[in-house]
Amino acid sequence: MTLTGHMLIGQHIVAGNREAIRGINPATNATLEPAYAGGSAEHVEQACALAWAAFDAYRETPLNVRAEFLESIAEEIEALGDELIERAMAETGLPRPRLLGERGRTCQQLRMFARTVRAGEWLDVRVDNAQPNRQPMPRSDLRQRQIALGPVAVFGASNFPLAFSVAGGDTASALAAGCPVIVKAHSAHPGTSELVGRAVAQAVKTCGLPDGVFSLLCGSGREVGIALVRDPRIKAVGFTGSRSGGLALIQAAQARPEPIPVYAEMSSINPVLLFPAALQKRTQALADGFVASLTLGAGQFCTNPGLVIALKSTALDSFIAATAERIKNSPAQTMLTPAIFNAYESAVNALADNTRANVAAVGQIGSGPNQGQAQVFVSDAADFLADHNLQGEAFGAASLIVQCASVDEMRQVTERLEGQLTATLHLDDEDLDHARALLPTLERKAGRLLVNGWPTGVEVCDAMVHGGPFPATSDSRTTSVGTAAILRFLRPVCYQDFPDSLLPTALKHANPLHLSRLLDGHREALTNDE
Amino acid sequence: MTLTGHMLIGQHIVAGNREAIRGINPATNATLEPAYAGGSAEHVEQACALAWAAFDAYRETPLNVRAEFLESIAEEIEALGDELIERAMAETGLPRPRLLGERGRTCQQLRMFARTVRAGEWLDVRVDNAQPNRQPMPRSDLRQRQIALGPVAVFGASNFPLAFSVAGGDTASALAAGCPVIVKAHSAHPGTSELVGRAVAQAVKTCGLPDGVFSLLCGSGREVGIALVRDPRIKAVGFTGSRSGGLALIQAAQARPEPIPVYAEMSSINPVLLFPAALQKRTQALADGFVASLTLGAGQFCTNPGLVIALKSTALDSFIAATAERIKNSPAQTMLTPAIFNAYESAVNALADNTRANVAAVGQIGSGPNQGQAQVFVSDAADFLADHNLQGEAFGAASLIVQCASVDEMRQVTERLEGQLTATLHLDDEDLDHARALLPTLERKAGRLLVNGWPTGVEVCDAMVHGGPFPATSDSRTTSVGTAAILRFLRPVCYQDFPDSLLPTALKHANPLHLSRLLDGHREALTNDE
Repeated sequence: MTLTGHMLIGQHIVAGNREAIRGINPATNATLEPAYAGGSAEHVEQACALAWAAFDAYRETPLNVRAEFLESIAEEIEALGDELIERAMAETGLPRPRLLGERGRTCQQLRMFARTVRAGEWLDVRVDNAQPNRQPMPRSDLRQRQIALGPVAVFGASNFPLAFSVAGGDTASALAAGCPVIVKAHSAHPGTSELVGRAVAQAVKTCGLPDGVFSLLCGSGREVGIALVRDPRIKAVGFTGSRSGGLALIQAAQARPEPIPVYAEMSSINPVLLFPAALQKRTQALADGFVASLTLGAGQFCTNPGLVIALKSTALDSFIAATAERIKNSPAQTMLTPAIFNAYESAVNALADNTRANVAAVGQIGSGPNQGQAQVFVSDAADFLADHNLQGEAFGAASLIVQCASVDEMRQVTERLEGQLTATLHLDDEDLDHARALLPTLERKAGRLLVNGWPTGVEVCDAMVHGGPFPATSDSRTTSVGTAAILRFLRPVCYQDFPDSLLPTALKHANPLHLSRLLDGHREALTNDE
Repeated sequence: MTLTGHMLIGQHIVAGNREAIRGINPATNATLEPAYAGGSAEHVEQACALAWAAFDAYRETPLNVRAEFLESIAEEIEALGDELIERAMAETGLPRPRLLGERGRTCQQLRMFARTVRAGEWLDVRVDNAQPNRQPMPRSDLRQRQIALGPVAVFGASNFPLAFSVAGGDTASALAAGCPVIVKAHSAHPGTSELVGRAVAQAVKTCGLPDGVFSLLCGSGREVGIALVRDPRIKAVGFTGSRSGGLALIQAAQARPEPIPVYAEMSSINPVLLFPAALQKRTQALADGFVASLTLGAGQFCTNPGLVIALKSTALDSFIAATAERIKNSPAQTMLTPAIFNAYESAVNALADNTRANVAAVGQIGSGPNQGQAQVFVSDAADFLADHNLQGEAFGAASLIVQCASVDEMRQVTERLEGQLTATLHLDDEDLDHARALLPTLERKAGRLLVNGWPTGVEVCDAMVHGGPFPATSDSRTTSVGTAAILRFLRPVCYQDFPDSLLPTALKHANPLHLSRLLDGHREALTNDE
């Protein structure tokens, strides 16, 4: 497939008319062809008009049609073959195995949402049958289902050019919910975005869906991005990226005459608590696991373990020494973009200059451009508690180990943390009481709690929560990974005393879709339970 | 019980130190004793500190303990006996039967949430068992449940002094979710608020719960209300009232370092669409039903039918004439407060002065203070479409009938509407195709759609949606009435690879609470299904 450098507005390939961006190979700083001219407010208008025109029809597509569409997207992405992997490698510096894995995850995610759509639990069907003889007043027939919110604007992430981008989790879950999607392509991987965008557009065509179900725009966040969020036909926003970027979108969304929800995943340092017995018994293994998780993918994961909280002890000294040894031997890794590399350098330099933190170890120096060195710092709890800057996110393979004088000080440090995506406990049987005492705090701070694992690696499944209290995300009531992500793009509608012929299929008396229903206060037994 | 004029901070009766308010009997304009001195920022601080201290313990109370607490509140409210009814009558001008009914509804609502808490569907338990042998990577054990958001600030409504006030739907659903509640008493019914507040505090004591589970503050919205919303320990807000009041709270909540959700139910004119055949066949019955719904409770319902949309025809002329006849005979009714009466007068005067609307009929004039006269106006669709003021809410028994030249113009008018709580269709078999064509628009506009009924009267049940797109509410994804209201105060937490002994009871492997679980992708059959 020849890359065109153009946008997709429905089935139309449209050239932008604003300043162009090009992909940059971060391993060489070479610019990549073609140029992607930016879109303007006019293109936003066209895409939104088309999405709006598609909305009522698309949201009522039969569940199996919508599921087949999601599966078709996965097939079209796979059909792109090695061209997609090569282009993504060139634009991100990520290695081939990582991108192969990410493609698998992306397609698996689309197929999982297809299964979710078919099962229909997300419709949350509730039926209260009429009680015409109830005293003192009869009860009407009342039926509730969830319907799609409306067209959704998606802003992908630089660090997952497939799984959190054009056809990533936000797009998949919004499409699953019945929302048309307009993606603003991330400027760090425009070619990858075009390839995947054309795969989605092809699936729209193959499945005979309305054009406006999907569009892909390029351009500046300030012009195209803000215009998208302000457009009255956009009813929700998905975003993964920096805190400043997320907050700008939230502000624009709140300032609309009709405010809309923004699901922004922004920043997290993912505290790891090492409890005394575990630290004592598994010092070397913990250092192995920590450094492996910290340096994975140059540390460019939202769930990167950027903070370790432990009891000051000889075991902790050993852990720090073992960690330092491993960090010193860690090769530098090419980061995703020159901007991310520069931001990482600034963040670690600021930590190095901070008198409240000491450098424990620095990784190997790189030989090419944009190569980030792993770094680990050490601080005392009192210093950490005194300086909020120490809990800022340094996006990359940097982490701070906070030494606490007591388990209660571990609790104080934890209590002081901002909202997080994850919190991890390393514990042994003897640590269980300590861990139990800290659990209420951790539950208030994070969306996912792990025992004896590492936070990198986010399973795509029903029980996953990739979310958490502000500022980890803008809406702690939601997750952006896993089947529950679909719930973000739905709202309930109640139908009172509707004749059966006018009811949506999901609510008809005979339950033709065999949905799980809350019927007169009880969960109905499924007739087609597998 | 002697009214003290004081606030409740946990189990403590605390006197305010700011300007006092007194209840006013709107039927006589007489002020009522005692005076309620307003609270200050210091009282907000005390109540929030207590709520925060109670939160971790309260949110983990066993389900049956929490359910018994809700039932105990209902019993304590009933035990207040006639004193509550008398006081509420004096403070609101509402008649005894209405308040008896509302007390029943309030207690039924508390008991319904008790059943909801026990059933535990709201925990949305999702279990993905470990797959240690999965290729290429093993899967962890992942378990999700919902936990309470944190302490909630509740601002009650003037028009439901029991069901949407101190122990109303917001309080009941927040307590059910595991959130401590701080109520800011509505200044229109401080005595009623104190009585109910003391009933809740007594239930807290009886059930042996932490003091901070409930507090009741008095005072100004600008001082106490905003301080509550700004307090970092408050994690969500429930509000029912005016659009300006709701928007002020939303703005304060968004400006916090950690923004929080505000569930504000604000304004709605509840369009009623009369389709041609129904209008032709049931002209008189529709006029009967319309005027009865419009004038119920002096029109002081959020679901009051403030807009009628119909096809210009001789049948519509007859409907308007029949409506006018009934309106002219409608007695004036005492409104809830002098302020509400004055606002209603202003709104209907503005409509009367608007050249795009004509007065069809005015109800009987009152003989006492604060008596609102029912009023019906008529406008053409072109005028309605040209003047946004015509869709402003006149809180009271006023409605506008919009005459349309075609069914398509009915659609245009509907499409132009702001978000609504309800939309009603009156139809006959021959109207079904028209109705079906309008349904997508109506679903986008309202939270509840009714056929051949009237929007006043909101059933408290599983399937109810009392919510809708902005500005009907601030969050169209939610309902403030019915069991789904509990979902507003919850967020998901995922537990990865937790040892069984550390898992919350709801997530333990043996499912000791017999909860409905999504287990490895399938809805588990319940072992204790009734």
